[in-house]
Amino acid sequence: MVTATSPLHARFHAVDLIRTKRDGGELSDAQIDWAIAAYTAHEIAEEQMSALAMAVFFRGLNRRELNRWTQAMINSGERLDFSSLSKPTADKHSTGGVGDKITLPLAPLVAACGVAVPQLSGRGLGHTGGTLDKLESIPGWRASLTNDEMLRQLAEVGAVICAAGVGLVPADKKLYALRDVTGTVESIPLIASSIMSKKLASGTAALVLDVKVGSGAFMKTLESASELAQTMVDLGRAAGVKTMALLTDMSVPLGLTAGNALEVEESVEVLAGGGPPDVVELTVALAREMVAAAGCTDHDPADLLASGAAMDVWRSMIIAQGGDPDAALPTAREIDVITAERDGILQSLDALAVGEAAWRLGAGRARKEHAVQPGAGVVLHAKPGMRVRAGQPFITLHTDTPERFARAHDALAGAYSIGDTAPEGRPLILDRIG
Amino acid sequence: MVTATSPLHARFHAVDLIRTKRDGGELSDAQIDWAIAAYTAHEIAEEQMSALAMAVFFRGLNRRELNRWTQAMINSGERLDFSSLSKPTADKHSTGGVGDKITLPLAPLVAACGVAVPQLSGRGLGHTGGTLDKLESIPGWRASLTNDEMLRQLAEVGAVICAAGVGLVPADKKLYALRDVTGTVESIPLIASSIMSKKLASGTAALVLDVKVGSGAFMKTLESASELAQTMVDLGRAAGVKTMALLTDMSVPLGLTAGNALEVEESVEVLAGGGPPDVVELTVALAREMVAAAGCTDHDPADLLASGAAMDVWRSMIIAQGGDPDAALPTAREIDVITAERDGILQSLDALAVGEAAWRLGAGRARKEHAVQPGAGVVLHAKPGMRVRAGQPFITLHTDTPERFARAHDALAGAYSIGDTAPEGRPLILDRIG
Repeated sequence: MVTATSPLHARFHAVDLIRTKRDGGELSDAQIDWAIAAYTAHEIAEEQMSALAMAVFFRGLNRRELNRWTQAMINSGERLDFSSLSKPTADKHSTGGVGDKITLPLAPLVAACGVAVPQLSGRGLGHTGGTLDKLESIPGWRASLTNDEMLRQLAEVGAVICAAGVGLVPADKKLYALRDVTGTVESIPLIASSIMSKKLASGTAALVLDVKVGSGAFMKTLESASELAQTMVDLGRAAGVKTMALLTDMSVPLGLTAGNALEVEESVEVLAGGGPPDVVELTVALAREMVAAAGCTDHDPADLLASGAAMDVWRSMIIAQGGDPDAALPTAREIDVITAERDGILQSLDALAVGEAAWRLGAGRARKEHAVQPGAGVVLHAKPGMRVRAGQPFITLHTDTPERFARAHDALAGAYSIGDTAPEGRPLILDRIG
Repeated sequence: MVTATSPLHARFHAVDLIRTKRDGGELSDAQIDWAIAAYTAHEIAEEQMSALAMAVFFRGLNRRELNRWTQAMINSGERLDFSSLSKPTADKHSTGGVGDKITLPLAPLVAACGVAVPQLSGRGLGHTGGTLDKLESIPGWRASLTNDEMLRQLAEVGAVICAAGVGLVPADKKLYALRDVTGTVESIPLIASSIMSKKLASGTAALVLDVKVGSGAFMKTLESASELAQTMVDLGRAAGVKTMALLTDMSVPLGLTAGNALEVEESVEVLAGGGPPDVVELTVALAREMVAAAGCTDHDPADLLASGAAMDVWRSMIIAQGGDPDAALPTAREIDVITAERDGILQSLDALAVGEAAWRLGAGRARKEHAVQPGAGVVLHAKPGMRVRAGQPFITLHTDTPERFARAHDALAGAYSIGDTAPEGRPLILDRIG
C-alpha cells in the first residue's frame, strides 16, 4: 500500500543509486527508503538490485546507511508488538551451526525465569539444521501460529518457537532469494541487515546474538565473526533494543547429535538435567545473558534447569502448538556404524563435515521445497579430547535411504584425527560483545 | 541453435562464476564460453549477469579472459566475410564525441584510395550524435542493407555505411541494454569487448580506432582513454586484425556544427575541399592510418580529397543507398542566435555543453525509440582561439520546437569564456597507439 508519506513518492533512478555506491559514495536516507520500498513493490528490477547488492559487497554501507537500510527493510512489512504483555521479552538469534539445538532448551529455560521468549525461527538450508525442522519431528507439533495465538501463548506459557509470518520483512524475503543466486550473500552489512530487520520487526525488547565461528559456521574467522557481531549489536542498539553477542566456537559440532529428531532427543536430555556439557554450558550462558538483558535477575537459569522448571515450560510449549511431548520420536530405518581405526584420543572432528554428512543422510535440504527426513542424522560417540578404541563405534549414521551412506562417508573422509596426547582445548565461548 | 559442440553443453552454475570473479579469481575459457552463450540463450538470468558485470567492473578481466570473452561475444551471432572482395578492407570506430561527423567524409575518401570500407554504424543516444541519424537526414537514404547488398556496394562503390544487422553479436545487444540500467557501463573490459566484438564480427582486415578524450567524450582523461585504446588494440591484434588507435581531443566540439543535417552539410564542404580545419585534419589523419593498415600506400588521401575523387565516391555511396546527394537538406523551423557579450578571444567552449544543447534542441534522443529532428542542432561561429565581437552572432541554435531553446541555453550557460589573450592551443591528435 502506497501512502501519502510513502518513500515511493520520491523520484530516483535505480541506476543513479547503483553508480553512487559503486563509486564509493553514500546513499541518502531518502534514496535508501526509496530503494527498499520500490524493490519490495517490484518497481526496481531484480537486475538492478543485484548490481546494487554487488556494489554494497565491494563498498559496504556506513553506519548511518546501514541503520537506515535496516529500518527500511523493517518498514517493508508488519511489526509485532508485545508491549501488552505483563512480562519483559527477550529473543535470541544464532547465525547457525552444526548440532545447534540450543534454542530448544533455551526458550523454555528463559521463560521459566519469567522472561517471555517470542522466538521466530526458520527451516534449514544446506549443512546447518533449522529449528522448525527439528521441532516438526515431534508428532502433532505445528510451526505456524497467528499473531494472536503467539501473543496468547507468550502470556500463558511464556515461550513460543514458531515460523515468521509472511508479512514480516517482505523486503528481506525478496532480497535474500536474490542474493542467494547472485553471489551477494557474503556481505557483512547485507547479512546484518537481513538478520536484524527480522529480529527488530519481531518486537523483542532484548536480544542476544550467538555468532558462530569456525568451519561449521558461516563466519570462518574470529575477525569476521567479531565484525558481524559488532555490526549487529550496533544496529540493535540504534533501534532501542538491548543487544549483545557471544562469539562461540563452531569448529566442532555442538553436542553429540546432528539431525532433527536426534537433536530434539538431546535437547530433552538437557532439560532433564543431563545432556552433553557443551550444550548445557551454552544454553545456560545464553539464558543468563537473556535474563540479564531483560532485567530479570531473580533466578539463575542453572537452578531452573536443574529443578525441572524449564522442562515444565517445554512440555507446555510443545502441547500449546499441538505436539505430544511424550510421543516416541521418529527414528531412521537404517543405521551404519563407523568404528575407530585405532586406540587413542580424538584430536579433531570437523563441524562442516559432520553437518554435510547429516545433510547428505537426509536431515537437511538442498532446496527450499525439499522435505527432510525427521529421523536422519549423525550421532557422535566421542568429541575431541575423548578416548576412542579400535573397532568400537565412533560415529553412527542414520537415514531412511541407505544409498545415502556412501555420500556421508565421503563427507566424513579426513574429517577427524586420532592421536596419543590430549589436544589443546578451545573454549566454547570465545568472546562477548556489548 | 545449440550444436553438439555448443558451450551450453558445459555444466556450470552462474553463481559460481559470479563468486569466482567477485573474489578476484579468473574465469576459465569454458566458463566464459558458457556464460556468454547461456546468457544469449536466456539461460542465465538478467540479475545474475548484472552481478557478474558489476564483479567485472571491480575486478576486471585479464588479457586471456578478455580475449575469450570477446570471442564468445562474436560467436553468439553471425560473422560477415569480405574475403571474396578483390580489395583490402579497413574499418574505423570512434568512441563518440560532439560534432564527430568524420565517418561521412572518411569512408568515401578511403574508398577512393582503393580500400573497401564496410562501416557498420549506430544511432545516437544522449549527447553524442549517431552516424545513421546524420545520413538519414538525406532524402531517400536508407540505413538497412542485406549482407548481399553490402557486399555488392563494397565491390562497386567501395564504401558502405549502414546499420548492423540483428544477427551480429546478439550477446552485446542484450548485455549492453543490461549494463545501461545496472550501472555497469563504465568498465574498460566491458566497453572494449562490446566495441571490438562488433568490429571483429563485421569482417574487416584492418581497423583504426579514434578514441576520444575530454569533456564531450566517454573517457574524460588521457590515462583512461589510453587504457581503453591499448586494450582494444590488443584485442584486435589477438584476433588477427591489423589494429591501431589515435587518441584525439574532445574537449571542444569537432568542426562548427552539431546536429544531423548540419553535420552532413559540413561533411560535404570537407569533401568539396573546404570545411573546418580540424575536421579536415582528423579525416586525413585517420584515412592515412586506414590505407596504411590496409597496405595501400599508392595515394595520399589528402590528394584524393583535394582532387574531388572522394566526393565522387560519396555521391555514388549515397545514391547506392537510395539517397539524393543533390537534394536540399532539411532545415529547422526556428533559430535563436546567441551573441557574444564582449569583444575578445574565445578561450574555451565545452564539448559536452554543446552536445547537450544539440540534444536538447532535438538532434539527439533520450531513449532508443525516440525520433530525432533532422534539422535541429547547434552552429558555432567561433572556436577557441578565434576572435569574437560584442553583439555579433556567436552560436546559433536550430530546432523545430522553440520551447526547447530555454533548455539549450541552460546547457550552454558557463560553457565558454572570452578573454583578451590567445589561449594555449591543444593538439587535436594527442597520441597514437599501435
